[in-house]
This record gives sequence, structure tokens and C-alpha cells, in this order.
Amino acid sequence: MTNRTDDEYPEAPSDRTHVKRYHWLARYDQETVKAILDATPLAHVGCMMNGVPFVTPTFFWREGDRVYWHGSSAGRLFKALEHQDICLTVSLLDGLVIARSAYNFNCNFRSVMLLGRAELISDEAVKAEKLRNFVDGLIPGEWERLRPVHAKEIEATAVASLSIAEASCKVRTGPPLDDEEDYAFPSWAGVIPIRYQVLPPEPDPRNLPDVPMPEDILKFRLG
Amino acid sequence: MTNRTDDEYPEAPSDRTHVKRYHWLARYDQETVKAILDATPLAHVGCMMNGVPFVTPTFFWREGDRVYWHGSSAGRLFKALEHQDICLTVSLLDGLVIARSAYNFNCNFRSVMLLGRAELISDEAVKAEKLRNFVDGLIPGEWERLRPVHAKEIEATAVASLSIAEASCKVRTGPPLDDEEDYAFPSWAGVIPIRYQVLPPEPDPRNLPDVPMPEDILKFRLG
Repeated sequence: MTNRTDDEYPEAPSDRTHVKRYHWLARYDQETVKAILDATPLAHVGCMMNGVPFVTPTFFWREGDRVYWHGSSAGRLFKALEHQDICLTVSLLDGLVIARSAYNFNCNFRSVMLLGRAELISDEAVKAEKLRNFVDGLIPGEWERLRPVHAKEIEATAVASLSIAEASCKVRTGPPLDDEEDYAFPSWAGVIPIRYQVLPPEPDPRNLPDVPMPEDILKFRLG
Repeated sequence: MTNRTDDEYPEAPSDRTHVKRYHWLARYDQETVKAILDATPLAHVGCMMNGVPFVTPTFFWREGDRVYWHGSSAGRLFKALEHQDICLTVSLLDGLVIARSAYNFNCNFRSVMLLGRAELISDEAVKAEKLRNFVDGLIPGEWERLRPVHAKEIEATAVASLSIAEASCKVRTGPPLDDEEDYAFPSWAGVIPIRYQVLPPEPDPRNLPDVPMPEDILKFRLG
């Protein structure tokens, strides 16, 4: 299933990030971690609440060696996540891999799993700066074009951050990998590529007539 | 932020599925639950392992009032999930919503969160039947075209299922919703639609020369 010998497998940053299932797809280098984190704003955060490991989809962004995400200061997620280790997972589906046997069906994908203790930002000015980075990371220069933020809006917003040090990635690319004897079996095999498509922006019907769309809006990308 | 009064909000199937954040986007009806589950094969499963709420991306499928997913019989996830309540979340990102203020930035999305105790299927024949439904659900008739499954492959595969009864959905569509006074602010607002794109299939270079691509391969859809 792989061309690497056991000695060639990279080392995980911790025992609990050590990938066991499909371990030949594992990567732990920070370059791969950052590339996957930067490819999409969508993450899924795992956090124990009321005895259940809730999985919450959320937008996030990266600055240096930390990821950030925001929500309501009054929300139960942000109250719960300071008191436990959490998991933040980012995954991108890149294709359906059609093999010659059901057992070797697969998908092409990129995923990263971050583990650790999140920190909440309490300084209001720092929160505002982080939110600006989030907005400008989606659309360059957008923060300056918006109605200036109110202090009560920053107060109502919680911003959490998590180190990207304790991370594991899985990356699968390429054609199916069948059992050698199955390559003689007469079944069509291949990959159906999947990607995100960003469509042309749809203006709000309530836009003012003399406000053109900034060209930066067209710079939004994901995938 | 909504046109509904409190009396008009639908009722959650349990206290722990009751949506509090952006509760005006919540839906609990099984029709919406099924529509979201049927739109993508990608889920994120939350399960406590080694004291951390791990979030694992996985393919899944729905049959009636249950969802199913598979993995390795030897894997730690499938050993852990029978002994605790878990969460299975499915989310689809439909657009970036650009408002006139950072506070009202949003995304259009569909998500469903299922809570409950998963069950592992132990009967090998039932497992094989479920895996057939999974493969044929992705590409109609594909199971029959594949190299027949080996008993040891079924044994090595774990199949879990979870009821969709304890579910909550969130759905956001449409243009930004700004504070009424902000509609006079001269900032461009609108939606950048996002969707999955399925690209033309790429044949495996090792395909046999006389095996054409079945037309059913083109029926794979998601989104």
C-alpha cells in the first residue's frame, strides 16, 4: 500500500496525534499543516458539552502558529472550551477514488487535526485586531470599507485561538491503489475530482445605486 | 434578525439539540434533516478518545432513519464509539455573506448535528449489504461491476450506524441582514455563492484497454 519503509515515516508531535489508520498518508510537517489550514475558512471544532463531544462547524483563520475563530461571548461553546483539551479539524474533499474492489474504494482529501487547549482573547483591542485580520483575510482591504465597528459588537464577540503545534495531517492524492492481482479484473477504475467552486458575486438588492463592487471581492478563494 | 415570533419556533427533539446561537436559523423537521444528509457523503464524527473529543472526517450514507459509516475493525474510533454518546455533523458551505458591517458578516450554509449512541453491525452478511448500499449510493450499480468482495475484507471492515431522531439543523440562505440604519452606509454588500463542483472522471492509467467507463460514473453528485 506504500513505497516507504517504516523508518521513513515522519514522527508525530505527540502520541495522541500519531496516525494509526492509513498511517502511510500521515504528515506532521508544519508546511503541510499550514497549507491545508490556509485552503479553506471552514473548520469543525470538537468540544465536550453536557457530556457529548459536540462537533460545531465554524469559520476560522490562521495567523502564524495559531488558528483563531469567533462566536458569541454568551455562547456555550466559548464558555466550555477553556476548561478542556479540544480538537479542531479541517478537511477538504478532493475526489472520489473508484477502485476495482469495494475494499479499495477511497477518497482523495486533505485533512488536519489540531489538538490542545484553546485560549480566549480578553483584550478588546486585540479582539478587534484579530477580527480585522479575519475579514481582510477573506477579502483584502474589506475592514476599511465597512461601517466602523461598535465597541459593544466587539464585547459581544468571543475570539478563541489554538496553537497549531500539536497537529496531524492526512493527504491522499492520485489514482486508486488496488491489490496487484485485481488490475487484471475488467472493471473501470479512476478518480472523479471534486473541488469548491466560487461563483460570481450576487449584489444585495438593497445596495445603494452609486456604490460599485470593489474588485477585491473577486479575490475570495477557497480550496 | 427574524420575522418569526418566539411561539413560531419549532421544537427541538431534546434539550441538548436545542439550538441557542442563531436560533432563528434552527430547523428540527426530519425532511430538512434528510435533505442535508443526502446532499454530501462527508461527515465529521465527534468521539472522546484518550480524553480528547476527536473530530474525524468520514464518508457516510443514510438508509431510512439511520446513518451509516465504515472504517477499520481494528481502528480505535470504532472501539470507542459504542461506549458513549457521540455527535455526527454534516455541513455544506453555500456562500460568503458580505454585509455592511463586520458584525453582520456571515455565511450561507446547511448543517445537521446528530446526537446519540452508535451501534456496530456484527453480522457479516448485513455488513456486506450495507457496504453495497454505500457503494451503489455513490454510483448506481457499481457493486456488481467490482471484483467480488472477499469474506476477510468484510471482517476487516467495521460498520457503525446512528439514529437520525435526535437531530438539529441550521440553514442560512439569502442576502446579508444588516442593522436597519446600516443600509444607508455606502459599502457594497452581497453574497459570493460557493458550491462543490464535480469534474470529469480521470481514468486510471492502468485500466484495461477494452473496459469502457460505465455511464453511471457520471451520476455521482454532491452538494
